[in-house]
Amino acid sequence: MEKVTIKKLAEELNLSASTISRALQDSYQIGSQTKQRVLERAAQLNYVPNYHASGLRKKVSKTIAVVIPEVADSFFAQAINGIEAVAQDSGFHVLIYLTHESSAKEQAILKEFQNGRVDGVLLSITAETTHYNYIQELITRGIPLVLFDRVCEDMLTTKITTNDFESSYLATKHLMDCGCHSIALLSASNSLAISKNRLAGYKQALTDRGRHFKENIVVECSKIEGKNYLLIKELLSRPDRPDGIMATVEKQATSIYQVCRELNLPIPEKVKVVGFSNLQSAAYLNPALTTITQPAFAMGKAAATSLFKALKRTNGSIVAESQVLSSVLHVRDSTCRL
Amino acid sequence: MEKVTIKKLAEELNLSASTISRALQDSYQIGSQTKQRVLERAAQLNYVPNYHASGLRKKVSKTIAVVIPEVADSFFAQAINGIEAVAQDSGFHVLIYLTHESSAKEQAILKEFQNGRVDGVLLSITAETTHYNYIQELITRGIPLVLFDRVCEDMLTTKITTNDFESSYLATKHLMDCGCHSIALLSASNSLAISKNRLAGYKQALTDRGRHFKENIVVECSKIEGKNYLLIKELLSRPDRPDGIMATVEKQATSIYQVCRELNLPIPEKVKVVGFSNLQSAAYLNPALTTITQPAFAMGKAAATSLFKALKRTNGSIVAESQVLSSVLHVRDSTCRL
Repeated sequence: MEKVTIKKLAEELNLSASTISRALQDSYQIGSQTKQRVLERAAQLNYVPNYHASGLRKKVSKTIAVVIPEVADSFFAQAINGIEAVAQDSGFHVLIYLTHESSAKEQAILKEFQNGRVDGVLLSITAETTHYNYIQELITRGIPLVLFDRVCEDMLTTKITTNDFESSYLATKHLMDCGCHSIALLSASNSLAISKNRLAGYKQALTDRGRHFKENIVVECSKIEGKNYLLIKELLSRPDRPDGIMATVEKQATSIYQVCRELNLPIPEKVKVVGFSNLQSAAYLNPALTTITQPAFAMGKAAATSLFKALKRTNGSIVAESQVLSSVLHVRDSTCRL
Repeated sequence: MEKVTIKKLAEELNLSASTISRALQDSYQIGSQTKQRVLERAAQLNYVPNYHASGLRKKVSKTIAVVIPEVADSFFAQAINGIEAVAQDSGFHVLIYLTHESSAKEQAILKEFQNGRVDGVLLSITAETTHYNYIQELITRGIPLVLFDRVCEDMLTTKITTNDFESSYLATKHLMDCGCHSIALLSASNSLAISKNRLAGYKQALTDRGRHFKENIVVECSKIEGKNYLLIKELLSRPDRPDGIMATVEKQATSIYQVCRELNLPIPEKVKVVGFSNLQSAAYLNPALTTITQPAFAMGKAAATSLFKALKRTNGSIVAESQVLSSVLHVRDSTCRL
């Protein structure tokens, strides 16, 4: 099929290429009859503007990027739905980029954005991310960026988070109420603010009940799933194994169930389990999983709404503000048989 | 921050803009010393090529698109991992576009690709997609496209599927072996080839055992989750309710568990359930779910490998070939208590 270009349209209609181009851009310099003629012929010939040329002219791509560690997680899947609900209303495309918890990959992706591939960015950082220069640089270059869930606390941009400290505090208290004496925490990272807040809530709950905090039952998990299974197996094979576990990442819960089955440790009798999880099937697990459920869809909507507000400002500047939405503790059989 | 352009570099180094541009593109026309000078200065000033200008020049974006109905599904999440494993080796970006089962959205996305935003496309079509002109047009315009899982059977391009007929045949036979007399099928669509093949396998299994096929227990599900819950509730509330269900879409299984609990129909005693599912937690559901598990990661890898082969051909042409990978039936408690 021959490609229909502006030049081709110009020949067909006996007009100059610049007239065609301006007519297609709905320029005030072109009369309405001419515009009509150009648009009709362009439609007949199925003319599609060249993406790169069009981007150069307009300096906008009508696209936002969502950069996240992974999609095999119900939180991110639901957050994407919230983001898309907002983007659709604004006529924007949503591109999803996965970092697979690699800060090098995150850096490469954000570097690419500096050159105008997208108009704005929604980012949830990797568990490895410890310095933020490349994130800051993108903002400095005038590309608005909103952080959600996994945020850099000291960065001047919009941040959408959930009440991680309180949720973790509540869940730890709940495990103690159910009779746990030794509660392990499975963390995503030593450096993420979200992990630090969850750890702080856990510690505070122990302190408030006069419990001693034991360093060695806080386990930093890996991005490799098989490795986490081994870490959990080691934890639950100790002579002084914990009788409660709080999993701060969704997929850890499945590994805990697997290990408990293999080691013949019934849940909740021998080990009680709470998971930060948006898994639809949590209520149908054996036993049903007690969860801290984040308002994932609402967080995605809030993040996208802030980003589109910034895109509407003439200079694309982003406001440094924080929004904290509330998670909910759903008590199920994995902590207390009802 | 002032933007570093080719013009700026040219001024700084007292060279022409075209020399800078060619040096950055590693042109044979530029001596190695000059190249060295340009690259060093560009690195010092943190020069980033303009994405659109660079795309215009090179006619490549080093990007492939994955267009899928949704990400809240373990099959697609695992397939994406397979695709990314291959793309990473080739130094390509992977962009994920979600159609949310809307063929209008699929059409808008593919139309956008006609203008060079991506170099190639991996597509799994929506449950609504019934005509394929816009898919064919993209291929005609020289943008290679590989179909995976949900394919258009009569289109001349590479197709990566799994043995849907056999899997469904085996699962239906298994339900009959477990004592089911009336087996319902939850379908994704009337039009998808994948759904037709799964239906055909199911019918063949019934025929081979001399069973009668009942039209009214094949339920076409909706893209709206809440609606499917109601369809399943209606099905299981009938006086002649089925004693076996085959769910051909992952998320249907959770709805079946929910309805069975509400209607007090224990699984597998009253209703036996098989699901097409790659859910990690299938073995830990209550009861553990019998699944047909697709080789999702391998399918993603195969699809991406075919696409990159096409991208390496000078004309970008795609080969019309089919690869069929095998799924596995995992028998668990939802069909037979062990």
